[in-house]
Amino acid sequence: MLMQGFPPPPDARVTLANWQEPPFNRWSFSHMRELVPTQRIPRGSGPVTPLPASPLPLGEIALHRVDGTRASVDEVLEDTYTDATVVVHGGRVVLERYAGETAPGTPHLLMSISKSVVGCVVGNLVERGLLSPAHLVTDHVPELGPSGYRGASLRDILDMRSGVEFSEDYTDLDAEVRVIEQAMGWRPASDRRVPSSMYAYLTTLGGTGEHGGVFDYRSCETDVLGWVCERATNTRMADLISELVWSPIGAERDAEITCDGAGTAIHDGGMCATARDLARFGVMLLAGGEVAGRRVVPATWLRESWTADPDILEAFARSVSGPYLPGGWYRNKFWFVPREQHVVLLCLGIYGQMLYVNPGTGTVAGKLSSWPDAQSPAMLQDTLRAFDAIGAALAGAAAGPRTVPGAGVPTRH
Amino acid sequence: MLMQGFPPPPDARVTLANWQEPPFNRWSFSHMRELVPTQRIPRGSGPVTPLPASPLPLGEIALHRVDGTRASVDEVLEDTYTDATVVVHGGRVVLERYAGETAPGTPHLLMSISKSVVGCVVGNLVERGLLSPAHLVTDHVPELGPSGYRGASLRDILDMRSGVEFSEDYTDLDAEVRVIEQAMGWRPASDRRVPSSMYAYLTTLGGTGEHGGVFDYRSCETDVLGWVCERATNTRMADLISELVWSPIGAERDAEITCDGAGTAIHDGGMCATARDLARFGVMLLAGGEVAGRRVVPATWLRESWTADPDILEAFARSVSGPYLPGGWYRNKFWFVPREQHVVLLCLGIYGQMLYVNPGTGTVAGKLSSWPDAQSPAMLQDTLRAFDAIGAALAGAAAGPRTVPGAGVPTRH
Repeated sequence: MLMQGFPPPPDARVTLANWQEPPFNRWSFSHMRELVPTQRIPRGSGPVTPLPASPLPLGEIALHRVDGTRASVDEVLEDTYTDATVVVHGGRVVLERYAGETAPGTPHLLMSISKSVVGCVVGNLVERGLLSPAHLVTDHVPELGPSGYRGASLRDILDMRSGVEFSEDYTDLDAEVRVIEQAMGWRPASDRRVPSSMYAYLTTLGGTGEHGGVFDYRSCETDVLGWVCERATNTRMADLISELVWSPIGAERDAEITCDGAGTAIHDGGMCATARDLARFGVMLLAGGEVAGRRVVPATWLRESWTADPDILEAFARSVSGPYLPGGWYRNKFWFVPREQHVVLLCLGIYGQMLYVNPGTGTVAGKLSSWPDAQSPAMLQDTLRAFDAIGAALAGAAAGPRTVPGAGVPTRH
Repeated sequence: MLMQGFPPPPDARVTLANWQEPPFNRWSFSHMRELVPTQRIPRGSGPVTPLPASPLPLGEIALHRVDGTRASVDEVLEDTYTDATVVVHGGRVVLERYAGETAPGTPHLLMSISKSVVGCVVGNLVERGLLSPAHLVTDHVPELGPSGYRGASLRDILDMRSGVEFSEDYTDLDAEVRVIEQAMGWRPASDRRVPSSMYAYLTTLGGTGEHGGVFDYRSCETDVLGWVCERATNTRMADLISELVWSPIGAERDAEITCDGAGTAIHDGGMCATARDLARFGVMLLAGGEVAGRRVVPATWLRESWTADPDILEAFARSVSGPYLPGGWYRNKFWFVPREQHVVLLCLGIYGQMLYVNPGTGTVAGKLSSWPDAQSPAMLQDTLRAFDAIGAALAGAAAGPRTVPGAGVPTRH
């Protein structure tokens, strides 16, 4: 029983040193503000976007796991360490599950889904003329001039195609993605050479100086992008997200974002929100960037993201991610994976965070998890299959009661 | 401009090392969650206790400062580094002020006003038969057996009359009250001999073993009391405060409380709340422990607190606090100071936190501040004079428009 007892016995304590590891992450991801400093992302005072519940027996839908075995949706959710799931179809919540430490009102760590939110902030600032994808990073943050970011454009970092050296090997504590955690306040500062703030660390990154090449997933790109947004607006990221995204989508609860010792939000992965509000963010994306007739994200920004060109397809195909999501691409902090008739938008975070937006089936699914490992291709694929199967059932049901038996949803029984 | 810029320049940064010092505390007290880990104290889902605004020109009321000079209420508030003030009379907010980093929705550090909230939790648990003032501390927390708390009763620590050695000299970084901050996560851990959690530190305290003597303000008494509450209920303090106090008073906003590396709330001073919700807490106390006909704190608990006996009066008169609040006493985590016809209840925290409840004039006043020093007898007295003057004016006004000119409030103009 993690963190039970007064005080909890030492082996049940979740600490800055163990919180990302199993089993501790099953507690920590739903209690981030209790572990590290956080900034509030106010929902504002506007109306909450309604998300009425119309539960359907979607948990019983059968599918094949990537390893060939058969399972129900509920079994996949259970087996993939799900803390919260919300599936929305036709504006209604058709499936909602919580487990362990996570309840409807619990902000759960979004990890790199945060990046997609930051991407929407950028889309807004581009629309307002404050930023342009053609701008150089150093136009806004001259401190990065001596770093590997010299010469990189916002387009390069929006699509993770700079030439900066940054290993995203989560299993290597000496990889930049783990070392930066010391600067972010996500890990005890064991190495004195690591600066005590994230921005200071970013200035130390090296690189080839050649940008616009292959897609290479580097969290630091989003941290740089957040820095650019703050400089362009003289507003901190927590407030930018509140004003430009969280308040306009009609979020039900304040979100939050972890921050470092200099008060800098961890743009690349520090945001925490409830599963329902994550679903609201997805519903906005499904609706082309609008909520209740009010524009949140520019339509062109989303349309351009959702449309591949040969250059971006090749940049992705040649990347290490290519084989896992064939035909996919990464643009403006979103992942895209093609289906038969349409393209699914994904926001992804390590340890099993996913927002799935499928315009073909009209399905939005948010899943917040605490996988034992940062990455798991099998759990990722099984989750995608589960949401694809749910979407197919819902789309079939919507097409008419005669096409599917029972409640309009095929089950494995 | 503290914490302005991306990142803020080093000399504008508020850190774990400087946040209690001026000028940094003007920012930090309204941004605690951004500096240290915090737990949410949910307001619950019940109705918000209405606190309608009926502003009166109370800021113009004239008074004599303790140094003999004349000033208006507004000048006293300005001169005493006020971040937020809410004065309630007759169920209405008659004066409300915010400054600097503090807005109506901002949770501000309550410092030792937290103790009074914990005291109300204890009153509840006594009513439910889970605790008794006659219990020994070690009945609930045997780990304290080898410490100076051996033999101390809950009554002793409710009234700060144990024989435990604990210097509350805020100006001495070697005093226990400052050393414990390393264990609480309120100060960088510079001394390796200090345990890394507050409860572990409490077990190291020594003492005379003689309890029930002179009043001696020791923050650790409330930390021990919080530990007792958690053990007696198997519930953490953030949830106890939510369920027993913050939700029942109809708070408008969630409150929060800072916590240490073992997830222990800082019972003695870590709570943060808005000025309006602090005023709601005061209105409940003024009403004898009820809100809208619902009991929050046992009537007998408050009545007994509000009533002095020779023993507790002498214990206070002989203390170092005696000369500052003549005729006063400390019981159940409240301070009491006599006026002509009645007794004022005070909740006090260092750096200028005060809740003033005057049944004689029917006045409740909450003031959240960021004094340059932890203690200032002059600022304390001037604030009391300001609230006394406001109360006198309001009581006079309530007595009838003929007794006071103008808006019923005497001004210095």
